[in-house]
This record gives sequence, C-alpha cells and structure tokens, in this order.
Amino acid sequence: MNAQAVIISVGTELTNGMTVDTNSAVLSRRLAELGIVTVSHVTVGDDVDRIAAAITAAAADADVVIVTGGLGPTADDLTRQALAKAMDADLVLDEASLAEIQQFFQRLGRVMNQSNRVQAMRPEGTEALANPEGTAPGVFARLRKALVFLTPGVPPEMEAMLDRHLLPRLSALAGRGRLAFRAVRAFGAGESDIAAKLADLMRRDGNVLVGTTVGAGVVSVNVTAQAVHQDLADRIADETVNEICRRLGRWVYGTGDETLAGAVGGMLRRRHATLSVAESCTGGLLAQLVTDVSGASDYFVGGAICYSNRIKQDVVGVPAKVLQTHGAVSEQTAQAMARGARERFETTYALAITGIAGPAGGTETKPVGLVYTAIATPGQTRVQENYFHGDRTTIRMRSALTALNMLRQELTDTPDSQELAP
Amino acid sequence: MNAQAVIISVGTELTNGMTVDTNSAVLSRRLAELGIVTVSHVTVGDDVDRIAAAITAAAADADVVIVTGGLGPTADDLTRQALAKAMDADLVLDEASLAEIQQFFQRLGRVMNQSNRVQAMRPEGTEALANPEGTAPGVFARLRKALVFLTPGVPPEMEAMLDRHLLPRLSALAGRGRLAFRAVRAFGAGESDIAAKLADLMRRDGNVLVGTTVGAGVVSVNVTAQAVHQDLADRIADETVNEICRRLGRWVYGTGDETLAGAVGGMLRRRHATLSVAESCTGGLLAQLVTDVSGASDYFVGGAICYSNRIKQDVVGVPAKVLQTHGAVSEQTAQAMARGARERFETTYALAITGIAGPAGGTETKPVGLVYTAIATPGQTRVQENYFHGDRTTIRMRSALTALNMLRQELTDTPDSQELAP
Repeated sequence: MNAQAVIISVGTELTNGMTVDTNSAVLSRRLAELGIVTVSHVTVGDDVDRIAAAITAAAADADVVIVTGGLGPTADDLTRQALAKAMDADLVLDEASLAEIQQFFQRLGRVMNQSNRVQAMRPEGTEALANPEGTAPGVFARLRKALVFLTPGVPPEMEAMLDRHLLPRLSALAGRGRLAFRAVRAFGAGESDIAAKLADLMRRDGNVLVGTTVGAGVVSVNVTAQAVHQDLADRIADETVNEICRRLGRWVYGTGDETLAGAVGGMLRRRHATLSVAESCTGGLLAQLVTDVSGASDYFVGGAICYSNRIKQDVVGVPAKVLQTHGAVSEQTAQAMARGARERFETTYALAITGIAGPAGGTETKPVGLVYTAIATPGQTRVQENYFHGDRTTIRMRSALTALNMLRQELTDTPDSQELAP
Repeated sequence: MNAQAVIISVGTELTNGMTVDTNSAVLSRRLAELGIVTVSHVTVGDDVDRIAAAITAAAADADVVIVTGGLGPTADDLTRQALAKAMDADLVLDEASLAEIQQFFQRLGRVMNQSNRVQAMRPEGTEALANPEGTAPGVFARLRKALVFLTPGVPPEMEAMLDRHLLPRLSALAGRGRLAFRAVRAFGAGESDIAAKLADLMRRDGNVLVGTTVGAGVVSVNVTAQAVHQDLADRIADETVNEICRRLGRWVYGTGDETLAGAVGGMLRRRHATLSVAESCTGGLLAQLVTDVSGASDYFVGGAICYSNRIKQDVVGVPAKVLQTHGAVSEQTAQAMARGARERFETTYALAITGIAGPAGGTETKPVGLVYTAIATPGQTRVQENYFHGDRTTIRMRSALTALNMLRQELTDTPDSQELAP
C-alpha cells in the first residue's frame, strides 16, 4: 500500500474564490513521483479553529500532511498558531530563523518590519525549515503517525521549500509500493469519441487505471499504474500509453506535460523549419503559447498582432480590397494574413487567426465564436472556418490551439524526406 | 449567521495534480454574492467511497453542498453512484434527461453513444437539472439539513447550470445576513510594505476583515464586510476600500476584478490615446494581457513579436549597429524597440520588452531574469532595468506587468488637460 497524503491550503482568498489554488496540484504531482498518493485536497479560510481541525483530521487519515499558506507576517496569517493548537504546544521563537529573516532584508537593502518577527515563531517540539526565496520559514512536525509540513503559500517559495526540505524528508516513505503516472494528450475529437475507443481500458479493475478529462478542447487520457517495483509500474504504464496511442492515432499530439505548442515546436525543430504568426482576435495568445516553450527561438521568428485593419495592411500586406470586400473576419483575410506573414517574416510556415472572440462584436452573419484559422506552407494556403462556443477566454484558447493543430497535421503529413530540407 | 457552503471537486486528475481546479473559486465567488459563505473546498479522486464520505461529512457541516465533476459518460465518473450511496438510495433512469441527451446529439448531427445513457441516471428521490451546454444533467437532492447539488466539472457547463438552476434555488438561503466582498489591487510594492500601512485595519475584530495576498507581483487587499442588510455591508466595505486606497496611493491600480491591463485600457480610452507593443522575451504575453480586455480595439492597434534579431530590425527598425554593439538584451535595444513600434504603428504610446526569461540563455553579465522594459511617449523614451526571480512563466508575467505599470504611471502623470488631446 502506498503512503497517502492530504494537502491543506489556507486562505480566505481561496475559500471566497478571489484566488485559485495551484499549489495543491504541484504538490500532488511531486508527491506522486515518490509513489505517495494524494487522497484529498482541503482548503480552509484564515480561521485558526478550522485550520487546526483540518490538520487534526488529516493527521488521523494520512501519512503525510502538507499545509500551504498562512505563514506571512500579517495578522490574518494563522497557520503557525493552528498547528500549535492541533499539537497542544506553545509557540516559541526560533533564533536561527530570526537571524535568517534579518539577513534576507539586509540582502535587499531594507530594514526588517517588526511584523516579520512573528515569522520566526514555531510550535515547541517542531523544526524550522529555512526559506531560500522569502521571509517565511516552514515548519516540520510529527503529529500522531503523520509527518506534517507547513510551507508558505507563495508558489515559488513553496516549490523551493519542497525541493530543499520536503522531498528529502519524504523519500523514506517512498518504498512501500510505487506508482507511475502518465498522460496522453489528444486534440481534434470529443471526450466520448475517445472514451468509446478506450472502453475496455477504462474498466476500473486491475493494476492500471485509465481516465479522461477535457480542457479547452484538449482531451487528456490519464494513466495510473501500480506495482511493487517502480520499473514494473513504469513498464505497465508505458505499455498502456502505447496501446492508447495506437488506438487514438492522429488525435494524439503528445504525452506527459507536453503541450500542443511543445509538440509542434519539436516537429519544426526536427525539420529545420521556421514559423511566424499573424493574429487578430487572439491578440498574441498564439505567439505566447509558442514561446511558452523554452528554446522556441530555434524555430519561431516572430509575428504581428494586427488588431487594427491598418496593421493588417501595413505589416502583413492584406490588400485593402480584401478587407473592404470580405471584411476583417473572413476566409480571404485569414488567407492573406497567413500568406503575408510567411512572406514578410521569411518563414517556412505561417499561421493566421481572425475572428470574433466576443462578448461584443458579433452580428447575425458573423456571430461571436466565428473564427478563421489559416496556414501558409511552401506549397499552399489553407483556411478553416470554426464556430467556437464559450466565453472570450475559451474562444481565444480554442482558436489558438486549432491553428496550432493545423500546423501539426501539416507537419505530420510532410514526408520524412523533407525533414532536412531548409 | 450566514448560510455556509462546502464545495467538493471530484476527479483523480485533480488529486494527482494533472489538472488545477478552478470551479471551486468561481462557485465561491458566486455564492458570496448571495451572502453564502464557503467554509471549505474539498477535492477527492474518482473513488465512490471517498466521494460518498465527503458528501456525508459536508452535509453534516454545511447548509449547501455543491459537488462538481464525475458526471461524465465514462467508467471513472462515479459521483451519481456516490450520492446514491450517501443517501442510501437506488439509481433510477430519468426519461426526460435521456430525451434531452438524445436531442443534444441530434443537434450536433451525431448519434448518441450508448455510454451516454448512464448520464440520465439519478438517485431515487432527487431531481435532474437540465444541462444547456452538454450531455451531463445535474442533480438536486436534500440530505440531512443540506441542499446538495451535483454539477458537471467542465467549467462552462458548471457555470451554465449555476446560473440556471443553483442560484435560483439558493436565493431562499440568502436572507440570513449579508456579506460584501471587495478587493483592492496594487502593484509596485511588497506585501509587507502594504500590510505595514494597513496594520490597524487588518486586526481580526469587528464586522470587517482585511487580508492581503500576492501573485506575480500584484498585491491584493481583500475586504469582507458583514451586516444584517446588504446595503449596510456594501457601505462598510466601500468605506474600507476608500481608506485602503487613500493609504496606498499610487500603488493601487484598481479594485474588484480589474486587471492592470484593464485599468491601463480605461485610462487610454479616456484620453483617446492608442498603444502598440514590441515584445521579445514575453513573446506575445503583453499583447495578450492587453487584448484579454473586451473592447481593447478602441485603443490597442497591434504590435510585433520580434523574437529574432532580423524582425527587430525589419519590423520595428532597431538599428543593426545597436544590436551588434549592445546585444538584443540591452537598454539600447529596448529603447529602440519602443521608439520603433511607436513610429511604425503610429500610436500615442508604445511598450517594449527584451530580456532573458530562461531557463536557458543566461550569462554571467546577463543572467536569467534580466529584463529591460521600455516606454515611448510623445515626449520621450524611458527604460527600466529589472532583475526578476522565478521560473520562465513568472519572469514573463512580471515583465509584462512591469511594462504595463510603466504605462500606468505615465498616464497617471499626464495632466487632465491632455485627456482630450488626440
């Protein structure tokens, strides 16, 4: 049986919905690499009793309890006090932590606020965990049979503490049975179409679980394999991934953390091909996705955000007549933008997007969600007419991913012999 | 006393960290508008016993329980079964739901998969909630003293069901005492500097709570006011916001949902001014933030993503000599990019960014995180040298927000008399 973890996030800004918790997802993934299964995430507000109750309940249920947030210098930061309450211990000053906090401010050339002094407190009988990225030290405690960690809620500080203090202390728990997680990413088909091809794999028995989730048109097929040894779990997971890829064929663009932009980038790099973009309604999102990938400068040259018609004409050379006759949101304009970007930026491929992301700007004949995506290649230009549903953010994301997928399909169809062509 | 809610999110892709839960934050905000306080978020995997236990515990603790996810057509969707278990009821087929699911497929011109039939099941004694956006109906049940709702996990489907079914059924609970939430958004100062100015307001007594959170350099000051009547709660909250804004002065860029890009956009619109951008390391992120704001075409003309040096020269006219002498990441290049974009795109203002977002590409003299942000105005060009910490995503976001903040300060300093100048 694998060790089990509960992750507790603290902050009224989380329970009232002003902020989205991303720490729990990061922690779960990192714990999974050690074979520690996160069985639940719990979020509570800045209330000392609720935090203490969540810690007590989690320590009764799990082997590992990680609490993020509530270690700041202000009066609404109550996680230290809550752990002291759950442990029935007093808070004591940690002199080494206080010295570190003072040094942190010195390095920034600033004087420590008196309010930061509280950050050097910890419940008696616990251990302070140095914070290389900020002023809030973490805390390591034992409560019942559980290892309990308090970390800051600021993501980079939490992640630094995770690497430096948590993972080394948790590696002892990792031996009880190992898990392997994999994800297959697909684009271009609905979740039930994909599930229909995987029905037998998705039965919930045996030592491998297969499930599907969907976001912005990307369908993820998540695989969890369990075995006594890591290499066996890995082998079962990899074999399952291979079978899923075989069945889903061209819908699959990648595995694991791979994004559609990352997959396309890899294909461009292998073919020594280059890319430029011309974006209207996505306003830079397509380029941003492409350049989210470190090393994108190997194949991505740049692009134009042509929000106004003047820029569509001046920068990527859409003929004024095309804009007058067909409008900015039209097959013809999308085509001219792609062709123009390819010529102007001297790239192997260019992608273009023009459409109506809403909520305003729709008409009877050109409703919100109508988006043209185009690709210019050495041989031709192709346009696709799309009707997307959802809000502005969803429509923009679907548009950008659909354009990237057109390029992926184009690159998939390019014969291998062209891989080394300039 | 306000009605209390617990939100349960279901999905192993959430507990294992493959997906970040955003539904809970959306739900909490919408419930808060009715004066219903979310006391906790709980996330559990696709395990019928854990889901049932979470529903049972929540129904004992809260007046409202909302469960999202696990209503899909596949074998790992187990929320219906879990509610039936928690209620000790059988699952029955809802004929009206089945007809609606069949119609949904007909509208798409497709045939219903047999797997979708399970989506028409609900525990006996509960009510099906029609899903206008997808195939999974929701469920409304009463368990102990709590109202329990099951909704799909796909965000647009959840949100449509929230508006159509949940809020009308919850409005009866809204009368017991009302809450008002506000947020003040600040950029340009650290969290403890801001907290130091608000120390007395952040004491946790009385009918108003003030707390701070931080993300990508934006410090949010969150205000919760409570009163018997909504208008009194609103007045207390608004007075507190005014006092916070007075104390924080120029650090404050907006309130509520306002983004830095939204605030800057409003200032540009009021001044009839226009904006263009030239981006290197942010690769379209700055433009994307600007165009996330609906109606940005009133002031945003477009821009260039100059990832390669050639585009820096060709499209925004950075002199080859500047690139050779000082390099692409330099004060001089940033300045030339801003000036060139302003001229090329004929705008009142232009923002430019060049830097090293990492993880690769850093050197001894130009480390990862070194970013130059520049602004060109009708009168001058200014550059700022920044050293940002964090990963690629953090550095890119800090860079884009810092550039926007330079424009905000510029616009704040522009005398009112210029507001109507062309």
